[in-house]
Amino acid sequence: MASSGDEEGISAAIDGFDVLTRIGFKWKVISESELSGSFVVSNNSAQPFGVLHGGITAYVAESLASIGAQLAANGARPAGVEMNVAHLQAVPYGHKVMVKAVPIRVGKRIQVWDVTFSMEKKQIPYSTGTGEVETTAVARLTLIAGLPHTEKSIPFQDQMSTLAERLGNNKLKKVLSSKL
Amino acid sequence: MASSGDEEGISAAIDGFDVLTRIGFKWKVISESELSGSFVVSNNSAQPFGVLHGGITAYVAESLASIGAQLAANGARPAGVEMNVAHLQAVPYGHKVMVKAVPIRVGKRIQVWDVTFSMEKKQIPYSTGTGEVETTAVARLTLIAGLPHTEKSIPFQDQMSTLAERLGNNKLKKVLSSKL
Amino acid sequence: MASSGDEEGISAAIDGFDVLTRIGFKWKVISESELSGSFVVSNNSAQPFGVLHGGITAYVAESLASIGAQLAANGARPAGVEMNVAHLQAVPYGHKVMVKAVPIRVGKRIQVWDVTFSMEKKQIPYSTGTGEVETTAVARLTLIAGLPHTEKSIPFQDQMSTLAERLGNNKLKKVLSSKL
Amino acid sequence: MASSGDEEGISAAIDGFDVLTRIGFKWKVISESELSGSFVVSNNSAQPFGVLHGGITAYVAESLASIGAQLAANGARPAGVEMNVAHLQAVPYGHKVMVKAVPIRVGKRIQVWDVTFSMEKKQIPYSTGTGEVETTAVARLTLIAGLPHTEKSIPFQDQMSTLAERLGNNKLKKVLSSKL
Repeated sequence: MASSGDEEGISAAIDGFDVLTRIGFKWKVISESELSGSFVVSNNSAQPFGVLHGGITAYVAESLASIGAQLAANGARPAGVEMNVAHLQAVPYGHKVMVKAVPIRVGKRIQVWDVTFSMEKKQIPYSTGTGEVETTAVARLTLIAGLPHTEKSIPFQDQMSTLAERLGNNKLKKVLSSKL
Repeated sequence: MASSGDEEGISAAIDGFDVLTRIGFKWKVISESELSGSFVVSNNSAQPFGVLHGGITAYVAESLASIGAQLAANGARPAGVEMNVAHLQAVPYGHKVMVKAVPIRVGKRIQVWDVTFSMEKKQIPYSTGTGEVETTAVARLTLIAGLPHTEKSIPFQDQMSTLAERLGNNKLKKVLSSKL
Repeated sequence: MASSGDEEGISAAIDGFDVLTRIGFKWKVISESELSGSFVVSNNSAQPFGVLHGGITAYVAESLASIGAQLAANGARPAGVEMNVAHLQAVPYGHKVMVKAVPIRVGKRIQVWDVTFSMEKKQIPYSTGTGEVETTAVARLTLIAGLPHTEKSIPFQDQMSTLAERLGNNKLKKVLSSKL
Repeated sequence: MASSGDEEGISAAIDGFDVLTRIGFKWKVISESELSGSFVVSNNSAQPFGVLHGGITAYVAESLASIGAQLAANGARPAGVEMNVAHLQAVPYGHKVMVKAVPIRVGKRIQVWDVTFSMEKKQIPYSTGTGEVETTAVARLTLIAGLPHTEKSIPFQDQMSTLAERLGNNKLKKVLSSKL
């Protein structure tokens, strides 16, 4: 684990990821080998039947994988090519969703990332609370890596550096300062 | 085409679809055989490199397919099972994205919906404007259909009826009143 | 349609596509903008419940898209990156499956192909025969395009040329002779 | 691990899985919580560039998940709904591919299975042999579970029982005898 926040994670608005801010996403770890965090299902992330909107799941997966792909490509610009999500279990309003993204293929041209969503079992009605977590959704994202920079990538660098600092990840901060 | 709005479409906040409101989504058609609309890429829907965020594409696809699946199942509750998106072409900031969802399989247990995203070619830099549209992304969603209602489905019914009325879709409005 | 075979299509074993031969696949069209053909569900392509094996659907999709991607890349070697298939309707033993692959994105780095599987409605039990076709499965394939050649690509060139000639596609034959 | 074969696995032709036989697939484990086996890339499974055909990967994934879904549903008939495969790394001709399928969701209506393909690192050219394995592809399959039996399911039961016996899985054999 390259870096981590406190128990509750770090709230940080990042330009270009408006929905993450909107749903109250809190960062725990951000590195080229893992990105993780959590959010609580609210009016901003629930669909009409009171459970997590599947599109929010997809948005979070795309966001974490995209940031991770850029870090894994030493700051070069990525572009999403294909994504898929399997919704395994509904997450009710008010429940906390934990998210973890890891790369399963980091090539020069193509990167593939897995993103896993889970919640604590004790939140499930009629479930005996054990502290264990249960997978609620899985996503897989395929991205092109190493595209040339654009002018707009500079502010992203600054935001990542600031976030890395707040997460206490000095190593990542240095990488970001030198490479992005 | 079961119903349609005016040139610009209808802006309508629907509970449970917060991001649609957030990105300024405008409805054109809403029925059990087609849902369509559009939005303009803005700060709320662009990623850090100034193009449409792939997670927004996924969210819009999931939203339209979910509403469509419920209408096609005579109002019974759907649940998303799997979704995938292919990002074919970046849509720059300020450009209008047109979205259209159609069912390709409406079974008793399973429904499958295709959602196509496009923009006018004339928006593409160095492109000769022809008025033709170009596909920018395609999504396919698999949903379980016909699940039992929950208490929370009632407000959704009212919202759909109101939206149908504003879109001038009298036939759909009657269906919604009687079935949902 | 760049080329077409006769009513029944052309049977042709191609090295590297053993299962196509095994299931009796017959080619109708082969070009950089469309590949199509058909086969009849038999012992070699049915699963234990007497309908088309979903893995055969996937194999055929991957095969047609791969050949098409190579043709669309002027003969440069492709590599499959991601594929997905939605099985919409079972195709019973003895029924003819028609397959058609078309590109939806031909970029320098990435190509995306759609493959549609269908059968005649009159084959469906209790269906009123209309001669119309019904979609039984859809697949989408993402490939990297333009990879460097290997020594093994030479026999593939010869096979494609021979197949193009048998399908009566003189234009494609010339392209293949000059580019692959 | 509910059952396992010897070092090399068990070769067994199963009606309805012709391609598994064709590529020389050898079973190691077969149960409702894991199915695994291996095969060596040959003329019957390689594509024209001398590496494993992506369609074979898909076929094997669909086969193992389908059998697993039926076992997990106490023998009730499954039907594949959606599948996707990410091809992470090419497997050259002559190399052994190890396959493992596990369920990530076993619901009454829907099952979701993950299938992982890997090879030993030492087979990779210029790689320092470490005995470790590397993931070459991952697949995810969504199936409807619990469909009513057909007449054709009987021979499948017998085949599974015979295979379970050969794999030394007495517990599974009993389950199959009583439930399928």
